[in-house]
Amino acid sequence: MSKPHLNIRLLNDNKIAMGPGKAELLDAIMQFGSISAAAKSMHMSYRRAWELVDVMNNAFQEPLVISSPGGAHGGGAVVTDFGLHILKTYRDLISKAHSASSQELVVLTQSLKVTE
Amino acid sequence: MSKPHLNIRLLNDNKIAMGPGKAELLDAIMQFGSISAAAKSMHMSYRRAWELVDVMNNAFQEPLVISSPGGAHGGGAVVTDFGLHILKTYRDLISKAHSASSQELVVLTQSLKVTE
Repeated sequence: MSKPHLNIRLLNDNKIAMGPGKAELLDAIMQFGSISAAAKSMHMSYRRAWELVDVMNNAFQEPLVISSPGGAHGGGAVVTDFGLHILKTYRDLISKAHSASSQELVVLTQSLKVTE
Repeated sequence: MSKPHLNIRLLNDNKIAMGPGKAELLDAIMQFGSISAAAKSMHMSYRRAWELVDVMNNAFQEPLVISSPGGAHGGGAVVTDFGLHILKTYRDLISKAHSASSQELVVLTQSLKVTE
């Protein structure tokens, strides 16, 4: 379970171009330097992480992540400058959206049932 | 396919308490007066619409929709005053979140690949 919260995603052509999971994955790739290590840190399968990267890279005009070949689960991976720019812009969007709607979010969350 | 857009949902305990689909369903129940007619208008199965109503009604402290028994697919359904209050608050949240983050949304959408 998790506390009540807003989930804000950018959809394009019915696919999630950017969202909380993809943003977290970009952070993890930056931290760990490969898709497989990033996936592991998020308790996610390598295949799933690769799919998320693929959706992002195909949604935007430039790749957000560049990976180099090597090994069964690929070699290293880096978040590009373009990827950093998209990630920062997404986080700015989330931050501004939250600030502007905080009053309504309080009303909604206080109307929810309390979960144990 | 659909144009790039933000998708803003209220999650509670990993369930979607309120989101664009549920808001649209509430509108349709108000317009058509039953869950089955609302479902039909949204090209959604009765079962799916009923599940969405059930998730909403269980997520919040009071029911958003009250349905009366009758027929194979139930009788009439009404959106409660509480439901109207939640719907309005959610729509206000969306509106304020969009206004505040419009600049970032433009940057992100202009960075997406153009889909035909």
